[in-house]
Amino acid sequence: MALLDSDASVDVRDLMQDMGDRARQAARAIALAPTDMKNAALLAIAAGIRARSGEVLEANVRDLAGMRQRDVTPAYQERATLNTERVEAIAQAVEAIAALPDPVGDEIAAWERPNGLKISRVRPPLGVIGIIFESRPNVTVDAAALAMKSGNASILRGGSDTIETNQALYAAIAEGLESVGLPADVVQLVPIRDRAAVGELLTGLNGTVDVIVPRGGKSLVARVQAEARVPVFSHLEGVCHVYVDKAADLEMALDVVVNAKMRRTSICGAAETLLIDAAADRFVGPLVCALQKAGCEVRGDADIQAMAEGVVPASEDDWSTEYGDAIITVGLVNGVEGALDHIARFGSSHTESILTQDEMVAAKFLNECDSAIVMHNASTQFADGGEFGMGAEIGIATGRMHARGPVGLEQLTSFHYVVRGTGQTRPV
Amino acid sequence: MALLDSDASVDVRDLMQDMGDRARQAARAIALAPTDMKNAALLAIAAGIRARSGEVLEANVRDLAGMRQRDVTPAYQERATLNTERVEAIAQAVEAIAALPDPVGDEIAAWERPNGLKISRVRPPLGVIGIIFESRPNVTVDAAALAMKSGNASILRGGSDTIETNQALYAAIAEGLESVGLPADVVQLVPIRDRAAVGELLTGLNGTVDVIVPRGGKSLVARVQAEARVPVFSHLEGVCHVYVDKAADLEMALDVVVNAKMRRTSICGAAETLLIDAAADRFVGPLVCALQKAGCEVRGDADIQAMAEGVVPASEDDWSTEYGDAIITVGLVNGVEGALDHIARFGSSHTESILTQDEMVAAKFLNECDSAIVMHNASTQFADGGEFGMGAEIGIATGRMHARGPVGLEQLTSFHYVVRGTGQTRPV
Repeated sequence: MALLDSDASVDVRDLMQDMGDRARQAARAIALAPTDMKNAALLAIAAGIRARSGEVLEANVRDLAGMRQRDVTPAYQERATLNTERVEAIAQAVEAIAALPDPVGDEIAAWERPNGLKISRVRPPLGVIGIIFESRPNVTVDAAALAMKSGNASILRGGSDTIETNQALYAAIAEGLESVGLPADVVQLVPIRDRAAVGELLTGLNGTVDVIVPRGGKSLVARVQAEARVPVFSHLEGVCHVYVDKAADLEMALDVVVNAKMRRTSICGAAETLLIDAAADRFVGPLVCALQKAGCEVRGDADIQAMAEGVVPASEDDWSTEYGDAIITVGLVNGVEGALDHIARFGSSHTESILTQDEMVAAKFLNECDSAIVMHNASTQFADGGEFGMGAEIGIATGRMHARGPVGLEQLTSFHYVVRGTGQTRPV
Repeated sequence: MALLDSDASVDVRDLMQDMGDRARQAARAIALAPTDMKNAALLAIAAGIRARSGEVLEANVRDLAGMRQRDVTPAYQERATLNTERVEAIAQAVEAIAALPDPVGDEIAAWERPNGLKISRVRPPLGVIGIIFESRPNVTVDAAALAMKSGNASILRGGSDTIETNQALYAAIAEGLESVGLPADVVQLVPIRDRAAVGELLTGLNGTVDVIVPRGGKSLVARVQAEARVPVFSHLEGVCHVYVDKAADLEMALDVVVNAKMRRTSICGAAETLLIDAAADRFVGPLVCALQKAGCEVRGDADIQAMAEGVVPASEDDWSTEYGDAIITVGLVNGVEGALDHIARFGSSHTESILTQDEMVAAKFLNECDSAIVMHNASTQFADGGEFGMGAEIGIATGRMHARGPVGLEQLTSFHYVVRGTGQTRPV
């Protein structure tokens, strides 16, 4: 669908409902498509993106010009900018998804009943996935490819600032699908800038959308979580904790804490709070010093300020802040119980790690901490589908239903029961 | 909490929010309770129900008197009626749940990464379950026991007609929990008749309720599905199909079709529609005759009426009706493709069965039919957690997320990732 110039002439509700209806139709085609066909479509999409690289970059130049006129922040413009290398990376990511195993049709479990019925749990796709994202144009292709490979139809709603870039990329997706005989409607891109389209998508479009995946900042995710009438796979924020127990190995703790905070400060698995066992306050000085030396601002309560140099006083808000930057808040807690209480109060259920050589204390933490990912003696920066061996992920989920932690291809499938009999009837 | 006599004096929103907050507190206690403690509580509850049998029956007499004054239908009164045998059956059901394996803490999957990180998926409980049900008082105890055994806190809202019976049963639940040192708030029963309580529960009570399970008729389930702001495990209806293929064994088909419809006509897995391959219209006469002989009214389109005696003309609505009674609608379809199309159009995604000796045709049906349960050469009446070997179930779910098909103890748990390292940091 071409970009519709004048949003005013469009009935947004009708447009979106039509997209939902077409997605539901296309969902059956992609659900039943064999793995070879899906992979052929993905490779055709990757080739198409390379072939259309010039058009994509021209569209991106137009989008960026618009953003400059609207005084969009330089950081936002940077995320929205494509160049030849970034377009090549997008194509390669699609090829990587083609190379992943297809979860559709996998038998997850199988058993036989005393009456001879053979029961198995098998994975069908989820159905139709609505994906709402912001400035990064690579999400357009990445999300569409993950949804497709897992047998789902998708409706993509990208940021209005990059709509021309997304349209250019979408042309390659539609062509790739059609080149193998799949309907282009397997992936649809919302063709209008009007933000009312997001509100419509969040209604589930009369049951045609099965799940919504938001990818973007906290305000986008918060809106989606508050308004969606269908299930959402998302995390609002990653206020990740590292707890250094009195039985920690200090050398390991210095490595892991600095890595958990500083390897990349912008990812959701970066540590934001360091909790130190009050029975091991000798660790405070070295840990604070190592973080500062790595370029991190350290904030702390009165105890921490008294024990280390150059600590900025922490406010109450600091304990629940995801900085996404080279800042960490440090506090003392009373052992593993104190750490668990602190995390239950201030955490975001994303990823937490305990550093200790005491296996009993580690077991208590792993058993009682109920975040999506709990770790022992490892950096929280491993909270990632690729690092988990799942291949690409569409995001991290902190909800408790269906998908939790990295959302990869398997998490984009459902399951159902297949029962094979030889004429069994149920006794009265 | 005692039954509050005058609903008018209660702020329903405050009351329900307080229940949500207390459930969330209690959820941590039951999540961490060892299996032995949960089983001891369940056995104490069963003993308490037997000990309080007299009080329960007296409360039930008062509820029934109220229903007669309000001209409640005899069928409804029958479902709400307890007697000594029914109370004993309730106690035995709790003992059966105590005997089931505990899913909490189960390791579902485990693998090791090249860097030595050991990753596993482990089941924690879901959290807090809201259960909304109608007249049957056994649901009070059954649902509470299933939620507890799977490590969840629960908030029960029973039908206002049986509130005194439910209160008497609840006294045994609270005592049983406290007798082993668990908080009584692990299970709470809404103590007011005001229906506004249901609306509040459906909001999720500010994030304190993780999932809602409705147990009752279509109007209750429809309201819950339409209004709930949290995930729902439910099925609106079970319009289950049996498709008899031209390659079916007629003798098997006669057995299975009659069983699927007539063994118990009121359960959700009972067949409501019989589809017969048009290439095997010789099956129509014997199948219709066998159903009629078993006491079933047969409705059909013009083709079926022409091929068999005593067939009632079917209206368009018949194809999507769950009779819950000794009525079935019969139609011809063009092979397995026609059956799949018919089911996609009129089905309720619950349970469908194909009868055929042709393995290729069966494979097509099992692969392409996307209901929660798909069967080959078996009666749809097997759609039941007990028959699947799952032990007791809290219901059947037709949604595509998290729980699908019979909802047993495992489906009342979540999962999260446990990562064990030896100091690994993530390379840049």
